[in-house]
Amino acid sequence: MGGNSFGTLFRVTTWGESHGKALGVLIDGCPPKTELSEEDIQKEMDRRRPGQGGGSSPRKERDRVEILSGVFEGKTTGTPISIIIWNEDVNSTPYDEMKDLFRPGHADFTYQVKYGIRDHRGGGRASARETVGRVAAGAVAKKILEQEKIRVFAYTIELGGIRAEKIVYDEIERNIFRCPHRNAAMAMEKKVEEVRLQGDTVGGIVEIQVRGCPSGLGEPVFDKLEADLAKALMSIGAVRGVEVGAGFGVARMLGSECNDPIGPEGFEKNDAGGILGGISNGADIILRLAVKPVPSISIEQRTVDSSMRPVSLQIKGRHDTSPIPRIIPVCEAVVAIVLVDHLLRQKAIERL
Amino acid sequence: MGGNSFGTLFRVTTWGESHGKALGVLIDGCPPKTELSEEDIQKEMDRRRPGQGGGSSPRKERDRVEILSGVFEGKTTGTPISIIIWNEDVNSTPYDEMKDLFRPGHADFTYQVKYGIRDHRGGGRASARETVGRVAAGAVAKKILEQEKIRVFAYTIELGGIRAEKIVYDEIERNIFRCPHRNAAMAMEKKVEEVRLQGDTVGGIVEIQVRGCPSGLGEPVFDKLEADLAKALMSIGAVRGVEVGAGFGVARMLGSECNDPIGPEGFEKNDAGGILGGISNGADIILRLAVKPVPSISIEQRTVDSSMRPVSLQIKGRHDTSPIPRIIPVCEAVVAIVLVDHLLRQKAIERL
Amino acid sequence: MGGNSFGTLFRVTTWGESHGKALGVLIDGCPPKTELSEEDIQKEMDRRRPGQGGGSSPRKERDRVEILSGVFEGKTTGTPISIIIWNEDVNSTPYDEMKDLFRPGHADFTYQVKYGIRDHRGGGRASARETVGRVAAGAVAKKILEQEKIRVFAYTIELGGIRAEKIVYDEIERNIFRCPHRNAAMAMEKKVEEVRLQGDTVGGIVEIQVRGCPSGLGEPVFDKLEADLAKALMSIGAVRGVEVGAGFGVARMLGSECNDPIGPEGFEKNDAGGILGGISNGADIILRLAVKPVPSISIEQRTVDSSMRPVSLQIKGRHDTSPIPRIIPVCEAVVAIVLVDHLLRQKAIERL
Amino acid sequence: MGGNSFGTLFRVTTWGESHGKALGVLIDGCPPKTELSEEDIQKEMDRRRPGQGGGSSPRKERDRVEILSGVFEGKTTGTPISIIIWNEDVNSTPYDEMKDLFRPGHADFTYQVKYGIRDHRGGGRASARETVGRVAAGAVAKKILEQEKIRVFAYTIELGGIRAEKIVYDEIERNIFRCPHRNAAMAMEKKVEEVRLQGDTVGGIVEIQVRGCPSGLGEPVFDKLEADLAKALMSIGAVRGVEVGAGFGVARMLGSECNDPIGPEGFEKNDAGGILGGISNGADIILRLAVKPVPSISIEQRTVDSSMRPVSLQIKGRHDTSPIPRIIPVCEAVVAIVLVDHLLRQKAIERL
Repeated sequence: MGGNSFGTLFRVTTWGESHGKALGVLIDGCPPKTELSEEDIQKEMDRRRPGQGGGSSPRKERDRVEILSGVFEGKTTGTPISIIIWNEDVNSTPYDEMKDLFRPGHADFTYQVKYGIRDHRGGGRASARETVGRVAAGAVAKKILEQEKIRVFAYTIELGGIRAEKIVYDEIERNIFRCPHRNAAMAMEKKVEEVRLQGDTVGGIVEIQVRGCPSGLGEPVFDKLEADLAKALMSIGAVRGVEVGAGFGVARMLGSECNDPIGPEGFEKNDAGGILGGISNGADIILRLAVKPVPSISIEQRTVDSSMRPVSLQIKGRHDTSPIPRIIPVCEAVVAIVLVDHLLRQKAIERL
Repeated sequence: MGGNSFGTLFRVTTWGESHGKALGVLIDGCPPKTELSEEDIQKEMDRRRPGQGGGSSPRKERDRVEILSGVFEGKTTGTPISIIIWNEDVNSTPYDEMKDLFRPGHADFTYQVKYGIRDHRGGGRASARETVGRVAAGAVAKKILEQEKIRVFAYTIELGGIRAEKIVYDEIERNIFRCPHRNAAMAMEKKVEEVRLQGDTVGGIVEIQVRGCPSGLGEPVFDKLEADLAKALMSIGAVRGVEVGAGFGVARMLGSECNDPIGPEGFEKNDAGGILGGISNGADIILRLAVKPVPSISIEQRTVDSSMRPVSLQIKGRHDTSPIPRIIPVCEAVVAIVLVDHLLRQKAIERL
Repeated sequence: MGGNSFGTLFRVTTWGESHGKALGVLIDGCPPKTELSEEDIQKEMDRRRPGQGGGSSPRKERDRVEILSGVFEGKTTGTPISIIIWNEDVNSTPYDEMKDLFRPGHADFTYQVKYGIRDHRGGGRASARETVGRVAAGAVAKKILEQEKIRVFAYTIELGGIRAEKIVYDEIERNIFRCPHRNAAMAMEKKVEEVRLQGDTVGGIVEIQVRGCPSGLGEPVFDKLEADLAKALMSIGAVRGVEVGAGFGVARMLGSECNDPIGPEGFEKNDAGGILGGISNGADIILRLAVKPVPSISIEQRTVDSSMRPVSLQIKGRHDTSPIPRIIPVCEAVVAIVLVDHLLRQKAIERL
Repeated sequence: MGGNSFGTLFRVTTWGESHGKALGVLIDGCPPKTELSEEDIQKEMDRRRPGQGGGSSPRKERDRVEILSGVFEGKTTGTPISIIIWNEDVNSTPYDEMKDLFRPGHADFTYQVKYGIRDHRGGGRASARETVGRVAAGAVAKKILEQEKIRVFAYTIELGGIRAEKIVYDEIERNIFRCPHRNAAMAMEKKVEEVRLQGDTVGGIVEIQVRGCPSGLGEPVFDKLEADLAKALMSIGAVRGVEVGAGFGVARMLGSECNDPIGPEGFEKNDAGGILGGISNGADIILRLAVKPVPSISIEQRTVDSSMRPVSLQIKGRHDTSPIPRIIPVCEAVVAIVLVDHLLRQKAIERL
């Protein structure tokens, strides 16, 4: 249990390093008889592929997905689904000089201390490339949610200080930042290009919605639905904060403002973000998360080498300027995984 | 696995209902030979006891802790530690009329949907009283952390819209809101009293620090230290948002601002909040969380009964006006539990 | 995870020491709306109570069961069920002189090495008294199985070298050894008395049957139904061997003898013991286990003290001559727990 | 959690079907800095390879092992180790006619009932070919045990009714049945050939020893060392019984015979098989298991098709006559995995 698994019943384990032979994911506990093809997964994988936007990483990976087990004649069989993504465009040379350095904002220092050894190439296991496995598993989870008419989607509400002032859902997949406000998207694009030219990077805020989630998902106490969602989202490398519903806004609310009144048609507003007492209440689930700027900047930085001697570092290599939009399918993936897991846990007790 | 457990190696399971016979916690995986007495636990329990502050719940519980197993001649033996807290001042009468209602902001509706049955008295299992078990387990965790010179403490940085403008650590345990700024604490007290008289409640923000945490704790990928901390904190009923280090602030930072430079003495600032790539980096761990107002207000609210017919509800019974300061020892407890768990996981691999 | 839990979805954790204040069990994941009373549990507890047979331990414990949580108005609520059994007739004096000795056949030596500390009184946590918690949880599991028309029962087929030559099911609960052959039971009683007078103890073989088990329970590969059953049974202190169906007999069979032919009505014989490929096949599940003699004998034994100096030991105190019949309800309990766990796991995937 | 994982800290998950693209194993929790090469794994894999003995399956698989992650410059890094074995010699034609039949002694029927779908080719996931993943993970576990001077080895003590009358350890790897008695091995070879010509198959008994195991491994109560070993061994498809130390022999022992006296040098005999109270006592661990005959026989059998209509079945295809010797490295593998897992669990608590 080196921490690479998630889920109780729908159990997902990712593996692989940025510059290793391949990366992948293993799903144990997928219900049988769900239709699943490589295309279903590829579609999601393409949404996080490098090199798709202005400020995006120029590493060229096709990220071709291959299903190695668990699917027979187009359907899941209930046995483990092993999915592999081969690394193709690996060039570790730029990392040679950073082999004995600890890049600020990266996990180099902590992996070295924890394990006493690390694959430094491309960040090794700590690379954001690890998330290809999550996206693949998320695609499987989405197929299951689809059967239950549950839909998960995410979008950018802030990037580089620019905020989406309105939410037009149809707009989301039309611009490269998956921003629901077209004007904001255009301003974001300009901002990202500006920052890229300075060799710097930007952060932002992503919002996630779950539509059609039945009430009753989530276990009380420790495995509350929002607790598992917070864990799943906070486990994405760049995420530094997670909130549900009114989120940090609740701190300045009165109880009479914060409580959602209930009427014959259901909840009359949704400051709870669709979850009460750790259990979904049938309203849309609303989550928001803070994404830090990509730590690989080409501006000179102070750091130390493995003997703790000061060195000056200027990162070369290929890097995104903004973690968004590529983090969006990753967010959707982990949320989908959490939901399927809780769906199965609920099925286990509800129809006995 | 009804979701009442937390931890991989240091495994904590709480049980009990607000108006049942007793509540308690079971700890499996506590290392042997740690000194532990009922007083060690009672001390923490007293910090969350009802009835200690201006706006606090008038339910009178002594919350006497009894250790039933796992300790021999003042030391832990490595076997499960069972701790019980008897309910004494139980009066379910005020809940009789709410038996078939769903209180807004509470878990009444979702428990009913999930289980088809619920113990409505005092909120049953969904009551904040469940946290007595967490605090007891946290006290055990703190004893273990103490041996390793790790200290966890929390304080209020905002309550009812009033913000602590400075942090004076010595002040924290001197005022009832555990606020590190005396003037703010006084303003908070006034605010809470004001809101209480209106029959309303307030929310706030708590900050948590971990001092002396060694680098190397946390597992990469899914069981990142901040992911487990986020889960643990988000699993506290009233928490709606969690952030680490610069938190949501990262959204408006550039990479060059957000990265913490490393010098020969270590990290030169701490926007990472002591965690990089999911693993502690030796700096202080800094967490912040948003706490919603207590949902039990005496102001009239719209809701429905179990047949979804509209009813008007005015809650009587005994309730806190502010979830703070009683939530503070609960926050410390869950953080301590996460740290011990990761400490043990790290020991398992580091000295083989 | 000190090893005191069992089960994935129906999760049982026992706690308590032989001479501590109390023992108990915590069940997390029990489905809601199952009828459950203290009497349901007491009935099973009484079947393992000390002092009921010729050779049985004269410790006088009423083993009164108390349900502390998870049941409301006679039904389970889906929240953790905490059950406590208070120790009443504790006399640790006979153990004082054995405090620094390692009793042969007991866990004294291994607990001391593992933990560096142990509660020596009555064997502490390693005492067979730990099984009160298993029996209580098993009683809950049996209630759930009852709803599904699944019945688990066990009986003695060999004791002190005397073998039941025939199986008359009605006879089982009529004699103190729960032996399905009346004549054998009488011979067993005589044998046990004879051995008791010599200060010695005897072993035996127990057989377990599960009737009405639906096909489809059990997960392939590691969590095969027989694998989980073997673990559960082998985790009972005195058990040294477990077999399913034809068991060790398969070693001398040909494939053509061992395979169970399948006809339109189902399996034509049952050498598989009701499990194929780790999954129940609808036939009766048949298990057998070897039980070692109680290690506490009053005959003088060679051992060492905690400084590894040789000493001669003659055990006083109160002990059973035969682990049977008291082990029988324990066997039934763990089998029932495994079945409920797999029943829930199967429900999770089968009706999505 | 479809049951394809084993272990708490050293967590092994196998995947793949007999006639799919590949099979493999994922190890999460392997300690860092252990030397590991593909050759280390290949060596063990070759010991279970098809086609190596008189009666063995003529399927020609080279079973080339490829490490895809978790190893850097010849050492483990603490991140997940993904190992793949490609299927090469796949011929599913002989299975076409069995697609709608349930082969006696196989999991065809139970998989169909459990999942409502199955990959029938070569037995799919239920094939003994799944064990390539176990053997690969076992090879990694053995490398770790080697560092701790712990050695696991297994051998045949009975096959087709022929029993090894003596144990000469050096003989074990010298004959194809891994039988420690040369004459018995020769008789076994003759017997297997005889049975093969009849189109039938044989069963046997394997014994396993662990040398150099330190005392203190194993968790009390449910995760007793012998309980986890029993589960691991019983999870091997062909195993129908498991015993430790004197095993089923204890049933006819007196307490005074069964107890192992302790002297200044340690245990004076080893009927406990190296485990007391679920914890290793420093003596050799001794296990025995019953292996059923391979169910694929070419003799005609009665069975039914998927509509439960009777059919007569004569299995063609390529099959072993005896599950031994190929099961031997599988037994060693799972025992090694259990030991490493408990070694890590013990490290977690012992040196805090």
